[in-house]
Amino acid sequence: MTVDRMLPTPEAHDLLDLTRELATRELAGKVDDFEARGEFPREVLRTLGRAGLLGLPYPEEAGGAGQPYEVYVQVLETLANTWLGIAEAVSVHTLSCLPTAYFGTPEQRKMLPDMLGGELLGAFALSEPQGGSDAAGLTTRAVADGDTWVVDGTKAWITHGGQADFYNIFCRTGGPGPKGISCLLADAGTPGLLPQQRERLMGLRSSAPAQIVLEQARVPRDRLVGAEGEGFAIAMKALDAGRLGIAACAVGLAQAALDHALGYAREREQFGQPIGRFQGLGFMLADMGTQISAARALLLNAARLKDAGRPFSIEAAKAKLFATDVAMRVTTDAVQVLGGAGYVSDHPVERWFREAKVLQIVEGTNQIQRMVIARALLQ
Amino acid sequence: MTVDRMLPTPEAHDLLDLTRELATRELAGKVDDFEARGEFPREVLRTLGRAGLLGLPYPEEAGGAGQPYEVYVQVLETLANTWLGIAEAVSVHTLSCLPTAYFGTPEQRKMLPDMLGGELLGAFALSEPQGGSDAAGLTTRAVADGDTWVVDGTKAWITHGGQADFYNIFCRTGGPGPKGISCLLADAGTPGLLPQQRERLMGLRSSAPAQIVLEQARVPRDRLVGAEGEGFAIAMKALDAGRLGIAACAVGLAQAALDHALGYAREREQFGQPIGRFQGLGFMLADMGTQISAARALLLNAARLKDAGRPFSIEAAKAKLFATDVAMRVTTDAVQVLGGAGYVSDHPVERWFREAKVLQIVEGTNQIQRMVIARALLQ
Amino acid sequence: MTVDRMLPTPEAHDLLDLTRELATRELAGKVDDFEARGEFPREVLRTLGRAGLLGLPYPEEAGGAGQPYEVYVQVLETLANTWLGIAEAVSVHTLSCLPTAYFGTPEQRKMLPDMLGGELLGAFALSEPQGGSDAAGLTTRAVADGDTWVVDGTKAWITHGGQADFYNIFCRTGGPGPKGISCLLADAGTPGLLPQQRERLMGLRSSAPAQIVLEQARVPRDRLVGAEGEGFAIAMKALDAGRLGIAACAVGLAQAALDHALGYAREREQFGQPIGRFQGLGFMLADMGTQISAARALLLNAARLKDAGRPFSIEAAKAKLFATDVAMRVTTDAVQVLGGAGYVSDHPVERWFREAKVLQIVEGTNQIQRMVIARALLQ
Amino acid sequence: MTVDRMLPTPEAHDLLDLTRELATRELAGKVDDFEARGEFPREVLRTLGRAGLLGLPYPEEAGGAGQPYEVYVQVLETLANTWLGIAEAVSVHTLSCLPTAYFGTPEQRKMLPDMLGGELLGAFALSEPQGGSDAAGLTTRAVADGDTWVVDGTKAWITHGGQADFYNIFCRTGGPGPKGISCLLADAGTPGLLPQQRERLMGLRSSAPAQIVLEQARVPRDRLVGAEGEGFAIAMKALDAGRLGIAACAVGLAQAALDHALGYAREREQFGQPIGRFQGLGFMLADMGTQISAARALLLNAARLKDAGRPFSIEAAKAKLFATDVAMRVTTDAVQVLGGAGYVSDHPVERWFREAKVLQIVEGTNQIQRMVIARALLQ
Repeated sequence: MTVDRMLPTPEAHDLLDLTRELATRELAGKVDDFEARGEFPREVLRTLGRAGLLGLPYPEEAGGAGQPYEVYVQVLETLANTWLGIAEAVSVHTLSCLPTAYFGTPEQRKMLPDMLGGELLGAFALSEPQGGSDAAGLTTRAVADGDTWVVDGTKAWITHGGQADFYNIFCRTGGPGPKGISCLLADAGTPGLLPQQRERLMGLRSSAPAQIVLEQARVPRDRLVGAEGEGFAIAMKALDAGRLGIAACAVGLAQAALDHALGYAREREQFGQPIGRFQGLGFMLADMGTQISAARALLLNAARLKDAGRPFSIEAAKAKLFATDVAMRVTTDAVQVLGGAGYVSDHPVERWFREAKVLQIVEGTNQIQRMVIARALLQ
Repeated sequence: MTVDRMLPTPEAHDLLDLTRELATRELAGKVDDFEARGEFPREVLRTLGRAGLLGLPYPEEAGGAGQPYEVYVQVLETLANTWLGIAEAVSVHTLSCLPTAYFGTPEQRKMLPDMLGGELLGAFALSEPQGGSDAAGLTTRAVADGDTWVVDGTKAWITHGGQADFYNIFCRTGGPGPKGISCLLADAGTPGLLPQQRERLMGLRSSAPAQIVLEQARVPRDRLVGAEGEGFAIAMKALDAGRLGIAACAVGLAQAALDHALGYAREREQFGQPIGRFQGLGFMLADMGTQISAARALLLNAARLKDAGRPFSIEAAKAKLFATDVAMRVTTDAVQVLGGAGYVSDHPVERWFREAKVLQIVEGTNQIQRMVIARALLQ
Repeated sequence: MTVDRMLPTPEAHDLLDLTRELATRELAGKVDDFEARGEFPREVLRTLGRAGLLGLPYPEEAGGAGQPYEVYVQVLETLANTWLGIAEAVSVHTLSCLPTAYFGTPEQRKMLPDMLGGELLGAFALSEPQGGSDAAGLTTRAVADGDTWVVDGTKAWITHGGQADFYNIFCRTGGPGPKGISCLLADAGTPGLLPQQRERLMGLRSSAPAQIVLEQARVPRDRLVGAEGEGFAIAMKALDAGRLGIAACAVGLAQAALDHALGYAREREQFGQPIGRFQGLGFMLADMGTQISAARALLLNAARLKDAGRPFSIEAAKAKLFATDVAMRVTTDAVQVLGGAGYVSDHPVERWFREAKVLQIVEGTNQIQRMVIARALLQ
Repeated sequence: MTVDRMLPTPEAHDLLDLTRELATRELAGKVDDFEARGEFPREVLRTLGRAGLLGLPYPEEAGGAGQPYEVYVQVLETLANTWLGIAEAVSVHTLSCLPTAYFGTPEQRKMLPDMLGGELLGAFALSEPQGGSDAAGLTTRAVADGDTWVVDGTKAWITHGGQADFYNIFCRTGGPGPKGISCLLADAGTPGLLPQQRERLMGLRSSAPAQIVLEQARVPRDRLVGAEGEGFAIAMKALDAGRLGIAACAVGLAQAALDHALGYAREREQFGQPIGRFQGLGFMLADMGTQISAARALLLNAARLKDAGRPFSIEAAKAKLFATDVAMRVTTDAVQVLGGAGYVSDHPVERWFREAKVLQIVEGTNQIQRMVIARALLQ
């Protein structure tokens, strides 16, 4: 089914057309193989970078495409329609460029064209093994020593860990709590920055994360991004935007699952007619379609608030929560529409079902989103 | 909680401000009493009409306000925040003007200024006792006799039945099926047009519907709206717009219930702290808020499609389905937040809970919406 | 639909037959009228008492019927099938006899035959306006003064308040917390025991509760039930049993709603066939039936655990939570099956829908049940 | 958490103790490895057979253990607690013995001791590629030719396909519809009975099914089980019992997931306390526990009806529907409780989540169960 989109500019239409074309040409033929082998698609990302898809929401003067979030998230959605792993990689990379783009020194910002063009792949190292949801309590510590920061600690569940060219490392340079956290921009080759084995995930295997152990890692003093103690604020700003990215991934994944289920329901016959004509299944499909439309509308509303410079953090949390819950339900039901055929690897729905689950967990579990939303509502 | 709205024009902001002011001044003090007594608020509607709220989405040259649906539905939402019965009356009246406004003869259209100004209140007589969901099978019959149509049959569940000044009567002038249906514009004083007792509803009592018995009712020939056989198409066009109206009512009602529950959760203490701080309740409130935001976003998306002249019928069905299901869930949970206090008539949440239920039924039950959506998806 | 029950004894079959007969003869004709007027059916309860239904689970030597809870809850379910208010009254009365039956002095127990025979109607005065869910924090205070307890405070949401012949008054005779609470057995005529206006409820109007103000109320010293400080333990024991009663009410109410919806779905035709044949509706009915069966099975399991002398408190909390959530969903859907007809007072489903809501609130809100269950699971 | 079970006999307690012991000793150490490799655990089943677990509900005189279904399903549940693949294999094998045990000729029944003792492993070949849910329309055909039946067709999604020693082949020996179907008992070595590659499943890999191609397969005439045309009735009788088996698998799987999630929630700390103490998570766990208890109670009720010789088919359908939906929800939430840790293969919850999905599909999809239940309710 083609979604009827109201885009703000003709340019946005072209961009989505280009994305669809790239998805067909560069992604569709590779996704099964890369996901089965769990191989990271570095070259595919480079291709997308050259096509301009890795710096979409950043200003053109910085090397970005100057696109509003409203358009950027629909590009992500379109990528996720074909390959969630790529969409998530684009989202994480885009978020990894944010500290440098908005808080970086002029010197640091010289890396931006290569970041936004995709030559340099980024990672966002915030979570830690002991404090998944409690970012403000992180314990990785950086101590100034001459012209370097000496960093010790462990970062966990880091997308692009071991693949990235640069890492945003959030670490404690001051006292406890959010005010003691700073952001360092570390190159992959930093001595003592030690990516570990990638996690063996149930899905999204092509972009499986890894732990990063930091053992007396030495990052140059001039790689502090923003002020000392500003790290937590930077991280939260990035995460607000990152929630929109995950919500877009979820909408794209759910739409793919619905479309596949619809195709099957139109063709598969039982009791003498296409199964989609059975109202029990038809109603299920109608609910799937309705929920996806609601998720997309909620996402676009949050993105437009951001584009308009209005507070959007809570609406982004709602979009992340709602869209990922929808993706889980819709992919579960899509497998059901196919029945046994949906449970075997011949159809992609079983992969989508496995992949949907991770979206309820990353970039703040849906429990964290509810905490954030409840707090705002009850103020 | 004030909803952060992105409105298309400054004028729209003023209109919503005016609506809020009217709601505070003219509605808030009357709603409990009118609903308890089940009295139809004819004068209140006249006041709204004089303020320009009864012809919002119609062209200014016809006497309307020339507002896009995007704005009109937010006016309805705002009214429903205070008094669902009034919002529903405005929605039904607005829909009742549609046949005349878009299909009427020049002579018929002379009534438009009084319709859109609220001096003449309208009703939309489509459903019948035997065929609630099966409009195309209606059996009320009109036979041409000289310069009148002689109409016989019974119309059921007609909002403003017995209150309206004019009725759109959908009746069979030809063979079976949708092509045999025409639309007549009948004055309340039509001989043989006999409103019955109003229904004794569980809620929404101020605008309780009534059956209309037509016994040899004589409507002038020149009161045929549109061509013979065009009635079903006219009805469907009105219902598509009407679904947006009900969805808006549902969003407004749900928001009112959430706001009231939030207020209670902030103040009521148990076990030594405000109950909203208990995460079990906080998460429930977060889900309520998220669903309402999704419903509103879905509604506005459908309204903007309509305003852009794009197909919007399916998206309107999704909005009606989703928003009214949300209203039912949210009002049920709002009563729960108040506990025993929510179950007594001292708080409005028990009324909202009773009112929400009807929204899942009117303007096409949510089962009919699912049929419509499923059919479109499976094409 | 007749439920296929596996009852432990032939006597239990007879008892259920008798209950059904009484329901048909004594309840069915009165329920609409009493509920519409909100009149308390004192005489109906007396009739049930004479038939032996008001002391079912108590030992025969105490004047009860010596029935296991497994049977008692099915009697309640059967009563709730016809009249929820009566079933709830029987449940509350039965619970009100528990302190005297199991903790009473020989002198107090002399009242038991009249209690269990229904000549004396009981109330259970635990909740207070400020601490609905926080029973251990109650503030009504009793101070010994010669041969009386002088009681001051306010009890809220007391079923049979103003109708009862005796009240179990839970009050603080010692320090803060659960250990400071005692139970007094007060006659209705106690000076200073002042029932207030009954609450104006959304449903269950025939057994609407009332506040009881205690102003220097003087209860004889020998009316202490159990030891000083044992009151909270007594209350909890009664509430555990009371949860089973409410769960039984919920199952009976839900079954009534399903049966009515099934009858309608078999007869009402749309688009040329009974609406029940449309799979969309059929699946909804199947889910309703499945959930009711699960609720009943869960309830009976908890009742059998109690009968076997095993710990049953947590299973009772699960049964209360699950069955009342089912009743709310099923009655909401039952109205939907009837459509507009379900929203008017001509059919009982709108009343059942209003009544279901209170069951999620009384005898510990469903949030309290979840707290209790979570605590037990996480031990 | 230990479930408090009310078992009918002391022997049943011993049997469950034995099952738990076997699960610990023979299953727990193997499950991860067999599931990862997708290897069928033939030897493990032989061990269970020798312990008497493969013929539990059959009469002792036939070589079974004479256990009621009430006990048998709790054995399955206990096995599924540790290894779903084994529980499902036991369920399918037990069901495969049913035709011979209740419809077999004396000669055929001579195989029973080896069947029920697990020396001969069984398969139940009913479904076909084109008619998954429409068993009555099957097209595999058997034609009598001298003293053999010559069978042609394809059976799909056959558990133990390629592993079994005997197959119940349901095939058409007469006209269209259910009355034209017969049951043949074919040895694995039957010429022309050609098991295909096993399906590549998302989960439950150790007992992955396979297609069976029948090409001029020759089954001796005396291997007709029951009368000609009785095959469909035999299949339905087996499937009714089989639904109880799948429901038991679902309850066991869900309980395992809850127990694991509880263990994690007790130990994992965030924001300074075990995450289980956060009410948002606690309420989720309470709902999981409540739903599992309801599923188990519903299952046991259906099993007891069967044991009592009462109609149980609809209650079995309800149990299958409800328990497998619960298993899907509970395993999805169990992964959520663990967060990222739940999404990696280090914890079993990701496997349980993948496994749960198949239970909503096998032995009649949950849509088929709803059809069956709706039809019965609407009679």
